[in-house]
Amino acid sequence: MSTLHTVLRSASKEVVIGHDQRFCLIGERINPTGRRIFQEQLRAGDLSAIERDVKAQVEGGADVLDVNMGVPLTDEPELLAQAIRMVQSLTDLPVCIDSSVVEALEAGLSAYEGRALVNSVTAEDERLAAVLPLVKKHDAAIIALPNDEDEIPMAADKRLDLTAKIIRVATEEYGIAKADIVIDPLAMPIGADTTTSLVTFETMRRIRDEHGVNMTCGASNTSFGMPDRHTLGAAWLPMAMTAGLTSAIMDARTPQIVDAVKAADVFLGHDEWGMAWIAAHRAKAAATT
Amino acid sequence: MSTLHTVLRSASKEVVIGHDQRFCLIGERINPTGRRIFQEQLRAGDLSAIERDVKAQVEGGADVLDVNMGVPLTDEPELLAQAIRMVQSLTDLPVCIDSSVVEALEAGLSAYEGRALVNSVTAEDERLAAVLPLVKKHDAAIIALPNDEDEIPMAADKRLDLTAKIIRVATEEYGIAKADIVIDPLAMPIGADTTTSLVTFETMRRIRDEHGVNMTCGASNTSFGMPDRHTLGAAWLPMAMTAGLTSAIMDARTPQIVDAVKAADVFLGHDEWGMAWIAAHRAKAAATT
Repeated sequence: MSTLHTVLRSASKEVVIGHDQRFCLIGERINPTGRRIFQEQLRAGDLSAIERDVKAQVEGGADVLDVNMGVPLTDEPELLAQAIRMVQSLTDLPVCIDSSVVEALEAGLSAYEGRALVNSVTAEDERLAAVLPLVKKHDAAIIALPNDEDEIPMAADKRLDLTAKIIRVATEEYGIAKADIVIDPLAMPIGADTTTSLVTFETMRRIRDEHGVNMTCGASNTSFGMPDRHTLGAAWLPMAMTAGLTSAIMDARTPQIVDAVKAADVFLGHDEWGMAWIAAHRAKAAATT
Repeated sequence: MSTLHTVLRSASKEVVIGHDQRFCLIGERINPTGRRIFQEQLRAGDLSAIERDVKAQVEGGADVLDVNMGVPLTDEPELLAQAIRMVQSLTDLPVCIDSSVVEALEAGLSAYEGRALVNSVTAEDERLAAVLPLVKKHDAAIIALPNDEDEIPMAADKRLDLTAKIIRVATEEYGIAKADIVIDPLAMPIGADTTTSLVTFETMRRIRDEHGVNMTCGASNTSFGMPDRHTLGAAWLPMAMTAGLTSAIMDARTPQIVDAVKAADVFLGHDEWGMAWIAAHRAKAAATT
């Protein structure tokens, strides 16, 4: 099986996600969820906080920026389109357009110049029928979650079944390339169920072996509710990368976790001679002297 | 395949290594290699530095203590026997008796009260014939390295062949239980060859799947020659644990690496409800207030 490359682009920059590539950090901070002040600003039409968030994610080492404008009582399509335009004016990193509202995804895709990642679709027939035509029309890539109307499945077998369904529908019915399908194998909080990460790792290994597609997930979920979340995140990501995870939606402002990902890239043979690792160390040493 | 448990004992304490157990930290510091002053002290018959090293490893969270007295121009068997007796007087942790000299292993085993781990034997016929009878006689467990007289093999296939040979010889010819064979899958410096950890991870997965035996290795080797070794070690161990590593010979004085192992234990389902993780966090918080 040849290696599948998910190619994302801004107007001037290309990012490739792949099992033979360095891990792709999708910066997750441009998102008002749980941020009351940011929500109020956005509701008042003030998008200025985005500038600071973009800067922090870029400085932290994000490769792609997730942009979510899910604020209740706003015109989310219009707000997301504005935010996408603003982010493009601030950085040349490609964008991941994040919404549960189909009209917002469409507005975001229309506003974006390049090849975006769309976040996300599930295995539900209605969602697939609503989102996949947009992805095809705008030549984008798609994050897909293997859960359906019934449940978030807790068994790897069911996640694999739904993954196979998504890939079949996307490729055969909508003509989307397999390389443009990024599966989220569903990372759940370890605090709720001690076996949940084992299921996620098994799901990742089997998706890699059986389908070869790229994967991403919300990495910070795994440590939800636990103390010392950064240390947990810095262990979980190298474990998940060993199992086949090729990108994650994560806050790039946490050096402990970003460094863990870079270290895992060295051991997975994605940083030849450790040159990026050594260069980053030198840059840090220079910055502190 | 039922889970193999390597059971180690001191006079009063038992430690179990297993794929369903928390990771076993074998503290590696009671070793004069590369420590000039310690070597001189030992040559002069002064073993007092061992007290400090034992204390540091125990406080750092070691489960077992590796004891090596390989000092040139000394009576290593006598020195190792003395050190083993001294370590037993200082701690109730089980011991890993570490020497390349067969007579030293024998002296160490004779001085030890309990069930020791012996470090190590290779797949070489002569070494197997010299070391395995001692292991059997003293009812110990053994660390075995899948390399022979020809080479340290760089291919997983060869490491698997030699692992199979070691297990066959130890069980069939010497009556040693499979549970008492701990394979070192050979972790080499990443700086010399960027693919080396991929080979080690594959070796680990296959040893786990094909033989189910426990594994250990010298974890700090992997980051040799690279900057920021602690961050590399803190990523490598969770990756190796995901691939099947069940213990490591490591310096327990590095909290970043010890914490990474404890975090990985949570995600591998070896720390039910994360209770040990949460308790350790509370203890740390209490210690700093």
